Amino acid sequence: MIINMAEGATEAEIQHVVDNIVLCGYQPHVIRGSERTIVAAVGSGGNRALLEALKVAPGVEDAIPIAHPFKLVSRQVRREPSVIEVAGVKIGGDEVIVIAGPCSVESREQLLDTAVAVKNAGAHMLRGGAYKPRTSPYDFQGLGIEALKILAEARELTGLPVVTEVMSTEDLDLIAEHADVLQVGARNMQNFALLRRLAKSNRPILLKRGPSATVKEWLLAAEYLLSGGNSQVILCERGIKTFETELRNTIDLAAIALAKELSHLPVIADPSHGTGRRSLINAVSRAAIAVGADGLIVEVHPCPERALSDGPQSLDLQGFAAMIRSLSEPLRRLAPLQMEASA
Amino acid sequence: MIINMAEGATEAEIQHVVDNIVLCGYQPHVIRGSERTIVAAVGSGGNRALLEALKVAPGVEDAIPIAHPFKLVSRQVRREPSVIEVAGVKIGGDEVIVIAGPCSVESREQLLDTAVAVKNAGAHMLRGGAYKPRTSPYDFQGLGIEALKILAEARELTGLPVVTEVMSTEDLDLIAEHADVLQVGARNMQNFALLRRLAKSNRPILLKRGPSATVKEWLLAAEYLLSGGNSQVILCERGIKTFETELRNTIDLAAIALAKELSHLPVIADPSHGTGRRSLINAVSRAAIAVGADGLIVEVHPCPERALSDGPQSLDLQGFAAMIRSLSEPLRRLAPLQMEASA
Amino acid sequence: MIINMAEGATEAEIQHVVDNIVLCGYQPHVIRGSERTIVAAVGSGGNRALLEALKVAPGVEDAIPIAHPFKLVSRQVRREPSVIEVAGVKIGGDEVIVIAGPCSVESREQLLDTAVAVKNAGAHMLRGGAYKPRTSPYDFQGLGIEALKILAEARELTGLPVVTEVMSTEDLDLIAEHADVLQVGARNMQNFALLRRLAKSNRPILLKRGPSATVKEWLLAAEYLLSGGNSQVILCERGIKTFETELRNTIDLAAIALAKELSHLPVIADPSHGTGRRSLINAVSRAAIAVGADGLIVEVHPCPERALSDGPQSLDLQGFAAMIRSLSEPLRRLAPLQMEASA
Amino acid sequence: MIINMAEGATEAEIQHVVDNIVLCGYQPHVIRGSERTIVAAVGSGGNRALLEALKVAPGVEDAIPIAHPFKLVSRQVRREPSVIEVAGVKIGGDEVIVIAGPCSVESREQLLDTAVAVKNAGAHMLRGGAYKPRTSPYDFQGLGIEALKILAEARELTGLPVVTEVMSTEDLDLIAEHADVLQVGARNMQNFALLRRLAKSNRPILLKRGPSATVKEWLLAAEYLLSGGNSQVILCERGIKTFETELRNTIDLAAIALAKELSHLPVIADPSHGTGRRSLINAVSRAAIAVGADGLIVEVHPCPERALSDGPQSLDLQGFAAMIRSLSEPLRRLAPLQMEASA
Repeated sequence: MIINMAEGATEAEIQHVVDNIVLCGYQPHVIRGSERTIVAAVGSGGNRALLEALKVAPGVEDAIPIAHPFKLVSRQVRREPSVIEVAGVKIGGDEVIVIAGPCSVESREQLLDTAVAVKNAGAHMLRGGAYKPRTSPYDFQGLGIEALKILAEARELTGLPVVTEVMSTEDLDLIAEHADVLQVGARNMQNFALLRRLAKSNRPILLKRGPSATVKEWLLAAEYLLSGGNSQVILCERGIKTFETELRNTIDLAAIALAKELSHLPVIADPSHGTGRRSLINAVSRAAIAVGADGLIVEVHPCPERALSDGPQSLDLQGFAAMIRSLSEPLRRLAPLQMEASA
Repeated sequence: MIINMAEGATEAEIQHVVDNIVLCGYQPHVIRGSERTIVAAVGSGGNRALLEALKVAPGVEDAIPIAHPFKLVSRQVRREPSVIEVAGVKIGGDEVIVIAGPCSVESREQLLDTAVAVKNAGAHMLRGGAYKPRTSPYDFQGLGIEALKILAEARELTGLPVVTEVMSTEDLDLIAEHADVLQVGARNMQNFALLRRLAKSNRPILLKRGPSATVKEWLLAAEYLLSGGNSQVILCERGIKTFETELRNTIDLAAIALAKELSHLPVIADPSHGTGRRSLINAVSRAAIAVGADGLIVEVHPCPERALSDGPQSLDLQGFAAMIRSLSEPLRRLAPLQMEASA
Repeated sequence: MIINMAEGATEAEIQHVVDNIVLCGYQPHVIRGSERTIVAAVGSGGNRALLEALKVAPGVEDAIPIAHPFKLVSRQVRREPSVIEVAGVKIGGDEVIVIAGPCSVESREQLLDTAVAVKNAGAHMLRGGAYKPRTSPYDFQGLGIEALKILAEARELTGLPVVTEVMSTEDLDLIAEHADVLQVGARNMQNFALLRRLAKSNRPILLKRGPSATVKEWLLAAEYLLSGGNSQVILCERGIKTFETELRNTIDLAAIALAKELSHLPVIADPSHGTGRRSLINAVSRAAIAVGADGLIVEVHPCPERALSDGPQSLDLQGFAAMIRSLSEPLRRLAPLQMEASA
Repeated sequence: MIINMAEGATEAEIQHVVDNIVLCGYQPHVIRGSERTIVAAVGSGGNRALLEALKVAPGVEDAIPIAHPFKLVSRQVRREPSVIEVAGVKIGGDEVIVIAGPCSVESREQLLDTAVAVKNAGAHMLRGGAYKPRTSPYDFQGLGIEALKILAEARELTGLPVVTEVMSTEDLDLIAEHADVLQVGARNMQNFALLRRLAKSNRPILLKRGPSATVKEWLLAAEYLLSGGNSQVILCERGIKTFETELRNTIDLAAIALAKELSHLPVIADPSHGTGRRSLINAVSRAAIAVGADGLIVEVHPCPERALSDGPQSLDLQGFAAMIRSLSEPLRRLAPLQMEASA
C-alpha cells in the first residue's frame, strides 16, 4: 500500500501514519519528494482493512493498493493451467469444448430433441435451465424439479454431462443430484452465501461474470470458491453492461485473455448472452476461440421463435451445426505484401 | 409490442407474424408504410414471452415493447405515495428521515457509542452490518449473530429501530428476530430466491439498487416483493458503476426523482456508498433531499481511520452532527435580476 | 510515480528501472518487501512520459502515478474560488445564476419571446444555439449567422448577456463578435485544436463535460484553456452516458462537488441535457444548487412540442418561471426525534 | 415513429397527436388497446424533428423511433461491401490488411527504422502521429510539420502508404499533401465541423469510434462523410470506456460484426488502444480477424520503454513480426466427440 500524503502534510501527520502502519503489522518507508511525501507500507500478513482506513487519516490524500488481492486463483500461485474434468470432458486443456442447449427446459420433447441434435453436431455438454433468474416476476421461471428430471434423462440418452444453474442454497442438493456442473448466474456472481455453500460441493462450478463486475471482482468471486475448498472452477464471460443500446450486452473478449493471463482457471465464452443477437453468434464464437477461450456455451432451441425465453439469441438446430463447422475454418488471409502495387 | 418488419419482408412473413400474434393471445394491427410494414400487437393477458420471441421470426427486424413491465409498484396502480412505518418512524411521508450507523458492527462499545451519538444528533434509525458482503474472501465478514445481539441491545438503549442486511435465506429468520428492517444489498438486488423469501416476511425491506441496474430492473426487483405479498418496500439509491475512477461509485440522484415518478414507493439515498468519499457526503445528502429523497442512510463511525470496513466514506460523530445541521440550511440564493448592471 | 516490480523481478531488472528513473530526471527510491520490490520515482520537472513508459520495462508489473496531472485549475494553486464576471453577472460568487433559452434559435419571434420571458422570470443570461452539433447530418443544424444576429438583438432588448456554442475554430471570430460567453459542447471537450484557439480568446468559456469524460479529463481540458492564457472558465456538468435507458443521460451531481473540491473554477449544471426529461428538471435543478453548483443552464422554449430540437427536455415559459420559484423553497424538513414513538 | 399515449389520455389529446402527425408530413394510424392507445406515424420525407417533439405533447407517454436514422452507410442502400483502395492496398476485400507504426513520430531514425521493419514483417500501410491529441496540455503534442515530412520520406523509402491523424480543419490541407489516409481520432468522432470539411477532401478517411459512441452514432458520423461527398470511409473500433480499471479501454469486437451487418463500409480494429496492454495484442488481433475485421491498426515502436507516448501498448519490432505470424495460425481445435468417455 502506498499512502500518498497531501501537499503540506505536517510532520505529526506523517508520523501518525508511520505509527499506524506499524500497528497494522507492516513496515513503513517514508519517501520525501520536493512537493509531497509518500509512505510505503510493505510486508504481508498484516491487517489490510485497517491499513486501507488510513486513507482518511489527517493529512492523507490517498491510499493506493499495490498487490493483487487474489491468491489461490492467481498464476503466481500456479503457473500451469488448471484442467477441469467433467465425466471425461476436459476443460482448459489443448482443445476447445462446446456446451449447448436451450435457455430453459420447456418440455421433455424440446430438451431431448435439442440434446440429440447438439450432440450429433459436436457438442460436449448439455445446458438447460430448470430454475431461471428472470428480471420480471411475471416471466417464465422454469420448470424446476421436473426440468431436472428431464435433464437427467437427456444425459442418460446422449451421454452428455449436464450444466444447470443454481439460484439458491436451498435447491443446491437437489440440483447436484441431477447435474454435473453447477452454474452460478451472472446476477449471483457476488451472492457470497451461495458461493460459500458451493465451495463445499464436490461439483465443478461454472462461474459467470457479473454484468458490471471488473475482472478483479470476478477472480475474487472465484477466490471464494477456491479458498472455501472447491478448485474445480470454470470462468465464463457473458457480456457486460454498457451504454450500447443495439445489443443486449457488450461481450468483453479481451477480458478472457486477461483472466487467463492473471489466473490458471479455464475461461469459456457465452456468445448468446454476450450479444443477444443470433446473427452475431458465429462470428463472436470464432473470435472467442481466437482470443483464447477454452470453450463456448451456446443457446440452442428447436424453434427459437417459439422459445419461452431468450429466443432472439438462440440458434436453431441447423444454425448450431453450421456454427460448429465454422469453428474449423481458418482465419481470413492476410493480403500479400504490396511492393509491386506501390512501386 | 410493435413488430417492426424488415424492408422487403414478404406477405407470407407478415401473415406468419399476424397468425402468431393471435396464437399468443393478442390482437394484430398491420400498418403499411412506404418503406416498411409494422405490426402492432395489442391487448393484455396474452403470452408476452412468446410474443417477444417473434423478434426472430423470418422477415422481422425488431420487436419493441411499449408498456412498462411492472404493475404493483407503479404509480398507475396507486397514485398516492406509500408510507412505510417502522416502530413509529414514517418513511415516505412529509418529512425526511435519517438512518445512521457504522458499516459493520465491530464491537459492543463501537456500536453503542455510535448509536447514542447518532440518536442525539437526530437520526431516526440505526444501521449496522452483521453479515457483510465483501468482494474478497479475506476481508472482514462481519460478527454475525454476535453483532445481531449488540444491535438489539442498542435498540433497547436508544429506542432506534434497527436496519441490517440479509445476505442469505438461511439467516433470514434469525435476523428478522433482531432487526426491524431487512436490507437487501446492492449485489443481491437480483437474488430472486432471496427476494421471494423476503416477500413472505412481515418485515419492511430496504431494497438497494444494484450497481448496474436500470431503474426498470430495480422496480422489477421490488415487484418481486410486492407480488409475493410484502408491500413494505423502501427503495435505496447507492450509486452505480461508471468509468469514473476518482470516486467509488456515481450516485444517480435523478434516478430518485424518476423512481418516485414511476412508483409510489419511498426512496432514500446512500451518500456514503454513493460517493465513497467523506468530503462529499454533506453536499450529496443535501442534494438527495432536494431531488426528492424520503431519507438518507449514512455511514458513521467513532473513528473512521480505524474502521474495519468503509472507513474512507464514514463520517465521524461530530461530522454526522454537522451534516444533520446542514440539512436545515436554505439553498444558496439566486442572484438578483441584472437590470441595472446590463442597462 | 510508483514502479511496481513483478514478483521474481531480477536485480538487473530493478537496476535497469533505477537507472532509467535517473535518466528521466527523477530520484529513485527502492523499497524491498517480502514478496516484491517497488521503486518510487520522486521529484518534479523530469520527463513524465518517459517515466510512464517504464511500465513496459522488463520485470515491471505496473507504473502508478501519484500526483494529480493538472496544475493551474487546481485548488492547490489557488485556494479561493474564481469568480467569472460577464457583463455584470458574477459566476462563482455567493449567489447562484441561471442561464436560460432555447436549444436552437429557430426564429426571431421564438427567441425574443423566450428572452423576454426568461428575463422576467429571473434568468441572468440567455442561451441559444446558432451552430448545432447534431448526431445525424439530416437533423436541423442551426441558423448560423442569422441566429447570431437574432441573439445580439435579444441582448440589446433585454440586457441579458448571451451564451452560444462554438463548434469550429473557423466560426470563432464571428461568434465572439455576437456573444458574451463561448460554449464548448460536450462532444468537443477534447477538441484540443478548438481549446487552444479559445485559450487565445478574451471571452469567458463555458466548458461542458464530455459524456464519457472523467472529472480528471474534464479538468485537464480546462487546463488547456488556462495554460494557454484564458483563465475565465466556467465548468458545466451535463450528464454522462451510462447503461440507463429510461433517461437520455445520467447527471453526475457529485462530480460538481468533486470538481469544486479539486478546482477553484465555478461549476454549473445543465439539468436539461442531464436528464432529457422535462418532468425531472425542477427536482434536479434544486439538487444541483444543493450540491454546490454555482448556476444552472436550462432549455426553455415557448412551445416545446413544436421545437426543432430538444423539445422533450425543454421547459415552457410558465414551467421555467415555476422552476425559478422552486429554487427559493427550503429543503424538506427532517422528521423530529422519535423518542416518544419508540418509548 | 410510434407515439405511445399515456393510460387515460383523452380523445382530444389523441386527436391533437393525429393532427400534428399530419402537419409533420406523415400518415397517422390509431390503434386502441384495452389499456392504452398508440398512434403510428408512417411515411418518409416528413419533418422528423417536429415528429419527435410530440413526445412532450399532452397525454403522450413516449415516442419511439422505428427506422434506423442512417441511409448512405446502410446495407439496405448498398448490399455488397465497399472496398476502399489506397495506393494499391484494398481494404474491405477478401484479404486482411495491417497498418503499423509508432503512436507518434519522435525522430527520423525512429520512424524510418520502424517503417522498414513493419514492411518486412508484412504490414501494408504505415501509421504515425504528427499532431497528437493528448489529455494533458503538458504531454508531448507531436512534431507537427516536421513529422509529416518524415512520414513522406518513409513512404518514399518503403512504398507504404501513410495514415496520420487530422485534429483540425486548419491543418487539413497540409496533412493531405503528405498523407494517404486521414484519420479522425476517437475524441473527434463527433467534431462535425471537421467531418464536414473531410467530406470535401478526396482522401480516404479512417474514422475511429468514440470511446462512448454507440454503433448508431458511429455510423451517423460516417453518414456525415458520405452525405457530404466522400464515400471512402474506413471504420475503426478502438475500445470503449467502461468501469473496468485493469485495462485502458474495453475493445468491443462484437461491434465490428454488427457494424459490418448494418453497413457496407470496411471496419478495422485497433488492438493497441483497444486494450492498452501489450501482452493482449496478439490474442485480440486474432480475435478481431475472426469476428470479421477487414484489418488491424497496431502501434509498433523500436523501444516501447523509451516511447514518448503509448509505450505500454506498443509492440517492439520482433513482437510485431511474431504477431503477424500468429495471424496465419489456425483456431484451436475442437475436442472430439465424447461418446467413448461418456459410454
